[in-house]
Amino acid sequence: MPYFDAASAAPLHPVARQALLAALDEGWADPARLYREGRRARLLLDAAREAAAEAVGCRPDELVFTSSGTTAVHAGIAGALSGRRRVGRHLAHSAVEHSSVLHSAAAHEAAGGSCTEVPVDRFGAVDPAAFDAALRADTALACLQSANHEVGTEQPVAEVAALCAGAGVPLLVDAAQSLGWGPVPAGWSLLTASAHKWGGPAGVGLLAVRKGTRFSPQGPAGERESGRAPGFENLPAIVAAAASLRAVRDGAAAEAVRLRALVDRIRSVVAERVPDVEVVGDPVRRLPHLVTFSCLYVDGETLLHELDRREFSVSSGSSCTSSTLTPSHVLKAMGVLSEGNVRVSLPPGTAGADVDRFLEVLPGVVAEVREGLGAPASAAPSPGPAASLVVDALGRRCPIPVIELAKVIGEVAVGATVTVLADDEAARLDIPAWCEMRGQEYVGEEPADRGSAYVVRRLS
Amino acid sequence: MPYFDAASAAPLHPVARQALLAALDEGWADPARLYREGRRARLLLDAAREAAAEAVGCRPDELVFTSSGTTAVHAGIAGALSGRRRVGRHLAHSAVEHSSVLHSAAAHEAAGGSCTEVPVDRFGAVDPAAFDAALRADTALACLQSANHEVGTEQPVAEVAALCAGAGVPLLVDAAQSLGWGPVPAGWSLLTASAHKWGGPAGVGLLAVRKGTRFSPQGPAGERESGRAPGFENLPAIVAAAASLRAVRDGAAAEAVRLRALVDRIRSVVAERVPDVEVVGDPVRRLPHLVTFSCLYVDGETLLHELDRREFSVSSGSSCTSSTLTPSHVLKAMGVLSEGNVRVSLPPGTAGADVDRFLEVLPGVVAEVREGLGAPASAAPSPGPAASLVVDALGRRCPIPVIELAKVIGEVAVGATVTVLADDEAARLDIPAWCEMRGQEYVGEEPADRGSAYVVRRLS
Repeated sequence: MPYFDAASAAPLHPVARQALLAALDEGWADPARLYREGRRARLLLDAAREAAAEAVGCRPDELVFTSSGTTAVHAGIAGALSGRRRVGRHLAHSAVEHSSVLHSAAAHEAAGGSCTEVPVDRFGAVDPAAFDAALRADTALACLQSANHEVGTEQPVAEVAALCAGAGVPLLVDAAQSLGWGPVPAGWSLLTASAHKWGGPAGVGLLAVRKGTRFSPQGPAGERESGRAPGFENLPAIVAAAASLRAVRDGAAAEAVRLRALVDRIRSVVAERVPDVEVVGDPVRRLPHLVTFSCLYVDGETLLHELDRREFSVSSGSSCTSSTLTPSHVLKAMGVLSEGNVRVSLPPGTAGADVDRFLEVLPGVVAEVREGLGAPASAAPSPGPAASLVVDALGRRCPIPVIELAKVIGEVAVGATVTVLADDEAARLDIPAWCEMRGQEYVGEEPADRGSAYVVRRLS
Repeated sequence: MPYFDAASAAPLHPVARQALLAALDEGWADPARLYREGRRARLLLDAAREAAAEAVGCRPDELVFTSSGTTAVHAGIAGALSGRRRVGRHLAHSAVEHSSVLHSAAAHEAAGGSCTEVPVDRFGAVDPAAFDAALRADTALACLQSANHEVGTEQPVAEVAALCAGAGVPLLVDAAQSLGWGPVPAGWSLLTASAHKWGGPAGVGLLAVRKGTRFSPQGPAGERESGRAPGFENLPAIVAAAASLRAVRDGAAAEAVRLRALVDRIRSVVAERVPDVEVVGDPVRRLPHLVTFSCLYVDGETLLHELDRREFSVSSGSSCTSSTLTPSHVLKAMGVLSEGNVRVSLPPGTAGADVDRFLEVLPGVVAEVREGLGAPASAAPSPGPAASLVVDALGRRCPIPVIELAKVIGEVAVGATVTVLADDEAARLDIPAWCEMRGQEYVGEEPADRGSAYVVRRLS
């Protein structure tokens, strides 16, 4: 049963399991107490902090354990913004950060702060010069992930860190997706990570704050973890997190080479065998284990369901598989297709044979889903006689508006337009993406009584 | 090796351990995902929520899992205060709440809110009428613990809940110390608890919010746990917490009777065999497993160290064992002695023989510590000739100022005063407590060049 969603959560690493079991017996007491059970817990906590700090590349007293990667990001951003409040209340971050960063930014704006979202290119990477341009005299903090969680693209952290240093702005690097693969390039002021992404247990995040970085913890005061993470330390999980990080890192270099080759294989075979597919993300500057692609005319939820029936577990950034009715903000920022989106992220140890089987199964499954939706054939139909047409896809969800567009494009003459009326959020992203893939012209979006009118001009 | 500090953290219950292990295999995936590992995780999460809700006495959709009891309190108070912001910004709470409540209150005041601390009697309980008097037209929230974590006294929750209902004020009950022993009396609007206090794992708190209670989660938005607890669910620990709560509750009634008798024995034997001791907290309306006493002329840290050497693990609310240099706010609010303070909290299953051995060892250890400090004998010396005296204990820490007072009281005539100059915070609590225990008159405190001057009049 191949599980290909390591970027959501990795199965517990055997070392984590072993360390957790040992620490359940040795590390349940309060490390702040003076008696032997407390002293034993304190020793375990200190050792875990040293091991995690070594892996992160910081001093033990710069690192605290939080209850998750999300709470590490929340605490890190809030503390850094408050610590530099005298400088200003501006926050700069990339458009493709994890939701924990975006939610922190939204909370900051709601509280009167200002934010600049730095755009990304079609691969999902920020341009260092664009990031630099977003830094202002009143910028209190900048945030950049080490690598993207949905498309795997690595960000130019070292370059951006140097620019931030030049501007005197601290940089928070969210290393949730990459820390298991290796240390973050130097230059960060704050770093966050999440243990269950590298095979550690749930319930543990890391927040490192370099000495000298102004930091003022927010929320009610706390006695634990230098006042930066409230609540009783989750010690068994902390011990397991630190032990597994070290173990995962030991094998990371070799495993990265192996998984990188498997992902390269997925990238090329999917593009080759699945018609009308867009493989997204940087093909080279990327995480070793992660690849994302989107399939035209495919309903994400049905696709995932059919893959699950064939025992492949993958995730999707399509709006048609999420509860929010909006496509992934990452795909949106990249301007790529969101319908029929599949993210494959291989856990360490993934067998090549399982990947091969996935690649054998996938084209048939996609074809089946398309057939079920009555999707048009891939080949462009010869131009029809109609001058221009309006297609009403109101109330229809992704991928139907794009399918309706594709069905009628054959009916109009070259130079004529098709106007799609749609109120599904995904249309805003997927209709331009379809035009790009099909070599047609996306004229633009106009307001309509309900939803929007998307205008496409036939070029060929 | 008897561990008598269950109120800090209980060793992991065997059922918790078993459930945790099973859930590590079955519940590591993201419960928000559609594939089988995700669905399996979702089933486990739903079942855990149902079990915990049943134990709490609420609907499953009223309960979320947080990362600790502390974060449950922080989130509960912040959400309830914000939800009723239009009503007003006043918070009422008892003076003996857990630090997580007091820190939330301090943060609320720092943000412009107002707070009323309801005092407690010498047993540590609030008077319902006094609590009622603290409720105002602009009171957004009231907080009362179910039972005190340092002295075990149960609070009149049902009475206070009825008064809050009458005033239209929601009541948050912090049930961290009592939930393993039984449900909280009805009438609460919000309830918080902490799994590692009942033998569950660290890393899990409960926050229940009754339907109809205005609640607006604070901090960055989150997709998990109804937006009330950020971060990836710590599912294996949640499963273990719910399973162990059920298991602990099954045996709670019988075990409560047994531990109650052991604690009664500690209460009477300590008062009998240890001279100059004050056993505090309500002797009847109390948690079954917890007792606190304070020993005059004893340094808390040395006492704990000596008990630890004899393999007894207990904790203390004395300033001389804490890093804050202030005595426990609970003992302070009760107006009882804080020096030489010992809290004994028995985990379920504690052997009676271990308690007997503790009671055999304790008197000798206390005597030894007193001897080391040159403490005066218990018997009151016959009155001396001096009219009045000033004792300089500046720079000396608890219990030295009280020892110095006791040494010279014999030198002054009946009716004369001893003035103790001290800058240790504990003196403010312990000198009046000494007077109460010794039948001398505490005249009062006067400002001095350094620290304070505490005036005591000899009555006998």
